[in-house]
Amino acid sequence: MNKEQLFEQIKQKKSFLCIGLDPVLNKLPKHLLKYNDPILEFNKQLIDATHDLCVAYKPNTAFYESYGAKGWQTLTETWKHIPNNLFTIADAKRGDIGNTSAMYAEAFFNEEGSGMSFDSVTVAPYMGKDSVSPFLNFKDKWVILLALTSNEGSQDFQTRQSGDDKLFEQVIKTSSQWASTDQMMFVVGATKAEAFENIRNLAPDHFLLVPGVGAQGGSLAAVCKYGLNSKCGLLVNAARSIIYASDGLDFAEKARAEALTLQQEMEQILGAAQLI
Amino acid sequence: MNKEQLFEQIKQKKSFLCIGLDPVLNKLPKHLLKYNDPILEFNKQLIDATHDLCVAYKPNTAFYESYGAKGWQTLTETWKHIPNNLFTIADAKRGDIGNTSAMYAEAFFNEEGSGMSFDSVTVAPYMGKDSVSPFLNFKDKWVILLALTSNEGSQDFQTRQSGDDKLFEQVIKTSSQWASTDQMMFVVGATKAEAFENIRNLAPDHFLLVPGVGAQGGSLAAVCKYGLNSKCGLLVNAARSIIYASDGLDFAEKARAEALTLQQEMEQILGAAQLI
Repeated sequence: MNKEQLFEQIKQKKSFLCIGLDPVLNKLPKHLLKYNDPILEFNKQLIDATHDLCVAYKPNTAFYESYGAKGWQTLTETWKHIPNNLFTIADAKRGDIGNTSAMYAEAFFNEEGSGMSFDSVTVAPYMGKDSVSPFLNFKDKWVILLALTSNEGSQDFQTRQSGDDKLFEQVIKTSSQWASTDQMMFVVGATKAEAFENIRNLAPDHFLLVPGVGAQGGSLAAVCKYGLNSKCGLLVNAARSIIYASDGLDFAEKARAEALTLQQEMEQILGAAQLI
Repeated sequence: MNKEQLFEQIKQKKSFLCIGLDPVLNKLPKHLLKYNDPILEFNKQLIDATHDLCVAYKPNTAFYESYGAKGWQTLTETWKHIPNNLFTIADAKRGDIGNTSAMYAEAFFNEEGSGMSFDSVTVAPYMGKDSVSPFLNFKDKWVILLALTSNEGSQDFQTRQSGDDKLFEQVIKTSSQWASTDQMMFVVGATKAEAFENIRNLAPDHFLLVPGVGAQGGSLAAVCKYGLNSKCGLLVNAARSIIYASDGLDFAEKARAEALTLQQEMEQILGAAQLI
């Protein structure tokens, strides 16, 4: 999906919500455990209940890998169940030397080999340009590069001063030269709302993937105050607050209600910014 | 495997060789394509032919993920085929917020859930302490943290000056406080031999995992000049130069010959350093 198509989806759905599909077996509603693949059933029902309210789904690969090869199959089937008009993010935090990143790109972008073709993958910047470039060889596929993450550990290196810049600012400035805003986004945690003004100066036209709203405590309004741009420019992710809204028979219904609350807040914000 | 056991293996085998198992289907000897899982057969024959010459195997997860769920099964079966006295490294370059890194730790360390229990996993440092800690909760399991990598992109951020230090030096100094030398190693590329003297000042007692000997052009002698410590302290990885030594029926035999050359060079180095 390219940038224009993504913005079209945002306008049509009046939403820039991304839902994180990070399921853990022991947190699932008990009635799903009778299924052969309870996590897949959980994901399918969540997707069916919410796909008109969000523009993206973001399965985090760790949650699937923890179940080994079977979990990887669940990830594949989950990807297949997501309707085509949604933007898909493999939240995998990959990155390695060039010939290896090329294999990660195959894993997430080449359906013929791996059974999956996500629109995008999250990538860690530490290994530099040649660890990122192989992902960019796939047309209309995106790298979502870690810039300023939502966790406490973001203070360990990302915010250290290096010359005139902090490390995450260097990452944004340097990597902006590696790809256009049609193939690169940045991860910026919602828990760092005060940083958005500065980041929008560095990356006025990029989409930003914003985790940390909901269970991690970030505020949607604070993020949007500085984060919105003329193409919306934000994908705001919520995971636990939606997918675990209930652990009963009504889990999908309650997940929809949580997603609807966020979508309605987003509709107001988009309207106030005259983007819809 | 703990540090003492690893050093014992090094002394017994007179080797600190790690073999990278990074197989690509179209580079395999043609006669293996008749097998149901050619990559698994390739790995098994390589392991059978070399396990007395090396102390560690390092499958890079990207090469398995590129084949989807089937590849993940191949990774699992490969891990199972590695004899117990060898140190196993899941070269996965993972790292995420705490609750997610905990799932990655399950994926690579908890056999009950995932079917695999490697001794160690490579982790990217960008997200800081809470992205690393969950791996350390597993007794006798190791984090191998990226410090100074072997690729050109290591110049983009790792070697940037930040205060008195370069970023990779900060990574070593800071992360040394997160775990003892019994649970943490660092990745330092063999292509950066001139950096080993400085790194040994910062991390005198850590094991270093050193990729880049062989196809990437690093020199074993140059690495050892400054890299060796009183417990050897080095695991030197070679992959392509060994596993693709021949693409004929004799591929395992030729791989053994390449591994033997490196083992003999290592035996001389260990002897000269009076470690054996």
